[in-house]
Amino acid sequence: MVLPEIAATLPLILAPALGFAFAALYVYQVSQVSLDDRRGSIQEEEAGLVGSSGAATPAQMKRIREITSFITRGARSFLFAEYRYMAVFIVVFGLIVLISLGLASPLGWPDGVFTAISFVAGAIASIVSGYIGMSIAVYANGRVAVSAMGPQVAPGRPDNAYRRGFTVAFKSGAVMGFALCALALIVLFVLVCLFYLRWPYLEGDNLKVRFDRTVALYEALAGFGLGGSSIALFGRVGGGIYTKAADVGADLVGKVEQGIPEDDPRNPAVIADNVGDNVGDVAGMGADLFGSFAEATCAALVVASTSPSKELALDWTAMNYPLMISAGGLLSCFLTSFVATHIAPVTRKSEIEKSLKYQLFVSTIIMTPVLYGLSVGYLPKEFWVGRCGDCWDTRGLPITVDELCGAIKTCQKVQSYYMFFCGAAGLWSGLAIGLITEYWTSHTYQPVRNLSRTCGETGAATNIILGLALGYNSVIIPSICIAVTIYVSQRLAGMFGIGIAALGILSTLATGLTIDSYGPISDNAGGVAEMCELGDSTRERTDALDAAGNTTAAIGKGFAIGSAAFVSLALFGAFVTRADIEVVDLMAPFPFAGLLIGAMLPYWFSAMTMGAVGRAADEMVHEVQRQFREMPGLMEGTTLPDYERCITISTTASLKEMIALALSS
Amino acid sequence: MVLPEIAATLPLILAPALGFAFAALYVYQVSQVSLDDRRGSIQEEEAGLVGSSGAATPAQMKRIREITSFITRGARSFLFAEYRYMAVFIVVFGLIVLISLGLASPLGWPDGVFTAISFVAGAIASIVSGYIGMSIAVYANGRVAVSAMGPQVAPGRPDNAYRRGFTVAFKSGAVMGFALCALALIVLFVLVCLFYLRWPYLEGDNLKVRFDRTVALYEALAGFGLGGSSIALFGRVGGGIYTKAADVGADLVGKVEQGIPEDDPRNPAVIADNVGDNVGDVAGMGADLFGSFAEATCAALVVASTSPSKELALDWTAMNYPLMISAGGLLSCFLTSFVATHIAPVTRKSEIEKSLKYQLFVSTIIMTPVLYGLSVGYLPKEFWVGRCGDCWDTRGLPITVDELCGAIKTCQKVQSYYMFFCGAAGLWSGLAIGLITEYWTSHTYQPVRNLSRTCGETGAATNIILGLALGYNSVIIPSICIAVTIYVSQRLAGMFGIGIAALGILSTLATGLTIDSYGPISDNAGGVAEMCELGDSTRERTDALDAAGNTTAAIGKGFAIGSAAFVSLALFGAFVTRADIEVVDLMAPFPFAGLLIGAMLPYWFSAMTMGAVGRAADEMVHEVQRQFREMPGLMEGTTLPDYERCITISTTASLKEMIALALSS
Repeated sequence: MVLPEIAATLPLILAPALGFAFAALYVYQVSQVSLDDRRGSIQEEEAGLVGSSGAATPAQMKRIREITSFITRGARSFLFAEYRYMAVFIVVFGLIVLISLGLASPLGWPDGVFTAISFVAGAIASIVSGYIGMSIAVYANGRVAVSAMGPQVAPGRPDNAYRRGFTVAFKSGAVMGFALCALALIVLFVLVCLFYLRWPYLEGDNLKVRFDRTVALYEALAGFGLGGSSIALFGRVGGGIYTKAADVGADLVGKVEQGIPEDDPRNPAVIADNVGDNVGDVAGMGADLFGSFAEATCAALVVASTSPSKELALDWTAMNYPLMISAGGLLSCFLTSFVATHIAPVTRKSEIEKSLKYQLFVSTIIMTPVLYGLSVGYLPKEFWVGRCGDCWDTRGLPITVDELCGAIKTCQKVQSYYMFFCGAAGLWSGLAIGLITEYWTSHTYQPVRNLSRTCGETGAATNIILGLALGYNSVIIPSICIAVTIYVSQRLAGMFGIGIAALGILSTLATGLTIDSYGPISDNAGGVAEMCELGDSTRERTDALDAAGNTTAAIGKGFAIGSAAFVSLALFGAFVTRADIEVVDLMAPFPFAGLLIGAMLPYWFSAMTMGAVGRAADEMVHEVQRQFREMPGLMEGTTLPDYERCITISTTASLKEMIALALSS
Repeated sequence: MVLPEIAATLPLILAPALGFAFAALYVYQVSQVSLDDRRGSIQEEEAGLVGSSGAATPAQMKRIREITSFITRGARSFLFAEYRYMAVFIVVFGLIVLISLGLASPLGWPDGVFTAISFVAGAIASIVSGYIGMSIAVYANGRVAVSAMGPQVAPGRPDNAYRRGFTVAFKSGAVMGFALCALALIVLFVLVCLFYLRWPYLEGDNLKVRFDRTVALYEALAGFGLGGSSIALFGRVGGGIYTKAADVGADLVGKVEQGIPEDDPRNPAVIADNVGDNVGDVAGMGADLFGSFAEATCAALVVASTSPSKELALDWTAMNYPLMISAGGLLSCFLTSFVATHIAPVTRKSEIEKSLKYQLFVSTIIMTPVLYGLSVGYLPKEFWVGRCGDCWDTRGLPITVDELCGAIKTCQKVQSYYMFFCGAAGLWSGLAIGLITEYWTSHTYQPVRNLSRTCGETGAATNIILGLALGYNSVIIPSICIAVTIYVSQRLAGMFGIGIAALGILSTLATGLTIDSYGPISDNAGGVAEMCELGDSTRERTDALDAAGNTTAAIGKGFAIGSAAFVSLALFGAFVTRADIEVVDLMAPFPFAGLLIGAMLPYWFSAMTMGAVGRAADEMVHEVQRQFREMPGLMEGTTLPDYERCITISTTASLKEMIALALSS
């Protein structure tokens, strides 16, 4: 470690501050797209004075305001209903953490209290992040649609409407991305500072006491990861059931049975579908990645805190290295975002997907040297990690830490630049996973094109077989990437390497979340354009924005799953390191049987969630069919469907199923 | 061990002999159902003298002979084409085994030569078993249909036609079941006797030499398992692609697009579909389970041969214990079969599924005391298993084998009755897997009923979601059963326990294969009844036979997968024991990365096979669509479709894809 303590303090305040400021700036810029009737009066419209150039007429504007307020209210009411359950969970589970650790932990009540504080802080920060994302998403829906309006442009010619629409959607996504990362980072750092007051590991002469303080501090901090991931479970499952039930319900009856276009305002489930995108793909996805981020950071910190090298475990600069990776990542993503907004803005349909893909590339490229600089600047040149026992305690012994640890097989000597390779392996694996996900899900490439051609020619059965095969195929290279990264980083730095690899993949999280939120925002913009009849050329543009967004949403899911694989292993490693477990023998009866049960659990959980989606979608389909059957003027467009009932069905069903799932898991 | 050597020799000759004799008897009985025009002349038929009582007219008989000869020729030509590829593989891979072991094995060329012999014997025995199964299946198709003819019987009244049809189908299935088990057992036993001439481990005074001989003998025998499972890969994949491509192709165009019934003779793919059932679900399934059986036996024998207890490893009776389990199983299944044919024959539609289920129950119940008797009768009262090093070598040491092995952590002392618990855990797990599979796949129970209701009401999308959820749900309890069995048997007797558990689940294989082959045989009988227009009441009966058969086919798949889980672990255990690997540490980089890659492989393989099925089905659909479009009198029934072309497409596509898969795996 070469840098002073201030270098590991100031950036951890400035980076989140920058993130918040940037998010606030983008909120302001998005708000500049007005939804007022500023384009002229209804008289002017009738006189043909407005509307012709592709700008929205006052009637259209009024309709946009109506629709978006529908969506906003639906999303808010679902989230607040969800929050009520989450609040009960946080209180109950927080008390369990408090009491069980207070009674059972060797550190006693301080451990219980501070872990409970971390837990609650993690849960609340996750909820706030999701809420911010949802708010800006529903705020942006109509504004993206309006921005995408404009006169028809000859194919191939630059089209400013694409640029406007894309920029608004992108900036709205970035609000979520930057606010979430900044919030996670600052809350974690504030907790570290707060807990330091109780466990000042930098002070005192008794090394044993100081080492114990480090371990205690970061162990209490681990509650943050638990809080974040608990909310992720609720958010992902609840929001996921909501969005899929509404989606299936809307498409099945509307598109398939009745033959009306997607997002047609005559479809009773259309608003529920749009709400679902916001609560599932924005708030739920945000909570999920917040959980991964919180857990990865905590896992890396816990492993680092058990190091016997005082240059790592008793050093402020070195111990903040994991947080600095996230701060560096935030900065890299900040710089990257200008590529999309200023350096190479989108001017044509064909550039949308490329522009989003460049975000992944550029952020990874910028982050790589940053990671190297952080590794050599913040870590001691050499240090020990692993299960080293009390290697540090050399009092009265004629040998050094190096000699003592060198004799222990499970203890590993690490050079600071090794950590760069661990982090970089994670970082580039993330890019690879993103690009491979794009290859298998984008209509630009062969797999999806072949599938859609086959479906058209020979129907549903071959489509399901080949589609499932395509999905299975898509995991092959990502799995190999993850396996190689795990091998390399564990080889280089044991479980600390795994933790840093997880932080590596998550270091470009702000960019990942930006392009990920971009997806549902564009999707809903398309919905607004269709429902408010903003014209074919607008719909064409929002469809193009949406198509690229569907792919980036898939990339976001790839990121979430990939990082979750690292994070779970990092947590496992942190547990094994702290619990001082010598070996997990695959040949022993218990681990092997456990492995089999563990391999089955995803199917169990999938079966429960799919069953939940199926039942909720079933209910939705019945309701939509009922409305089409019983409401006479619906198909003719003379009667408005009962959007509220569909929203209520999705809300009730997803909350009911979420609770059932949470109780059984 | 209490029994003399003859008790471990005679039964291993008599049990296969009984199996063959029983199979031959059933072939004879099935052949007694004549397909000749014995019911009367065409003049009599026209005069209304025959055909009215439900017996087949000469014209129908002629048509049955035509159709079954079509199916037989299609199945034979596919299998012989497949065998050509298998033959090349056997020669090439046999040479690889011969040369690599000859050069690299510490035992030198004898190891290479005898392992290659085992390998070829296993492969050929597997092929012969599959061929026998396919032959009796195509021979039985028409006979089951004819037997199921008879006058209409009031619902609820006993119907002799059910009894006749069921009995013929059941006996035909039993031919495959008993012939396969008998063949596998006798070939294994002959190999053991043959190899004993080279490695007579019962003779001589030098214990070390004798122990080495046991190990060498059973190591060479392990080639049998490799041979069996190699053919299983080809048979399962090739036959599987064939049957699914034809099935999807026939149903998609015939049932869905053209709206004609299943197995309608106007459907060009209908014969290919029937052929597929025979080559995939009979021959392929047979090869699969033959492979499992061969591998489980070899794994148990290899582990037993490494025991340091001379009462086990140097004793003819004890070393034949694994083979005796299979011999006892064959006898149990023999006794069980009389329940279906004589004690409680099927007389009503509602009894079919029950009767097949009783087979599973009864064989398991009979086998349980047999297993106990074998365990205490054939094994020494106490013995050591595990990685014990040279525990047996107590020359010049003041201690005994017990003292030496007792000090080694990886060495385990086992009581003979422990092995009963291991085998019984496997046996009853198999029953549980069978019953649970039945629950999730039979129309008698809620899951399938709910699914089919939902599909009718809300269509394909909820059907796929809920159907996939149902499939995922169905693995939960079987996984737990397998995990518990593995835990118990590994705890009791290490890897020997796993091997015996695998043999336990496979001990009722003859019954499992019987009810499994019964499925496609009844399915095809339905096809014949439809194509030869044997009347609605016949079709109703064959449909009922077929419905129960679909469920038992699923049970057979459950058995195959469950036993494969044990077998793979047993093989892993045999490898680890022989290679003397101390510990497989899940926390080490390489095993963990390997585990991730391994978890991905089933998806890779599934993606490849599903892609292969999808492509083959695609081709089939195009061909069927083309025939319906281009052949004018097809729908009216005035022109016969070109069955041959569809058979050729399935044959060519499945062989092509099988080779591609074999090369890439």
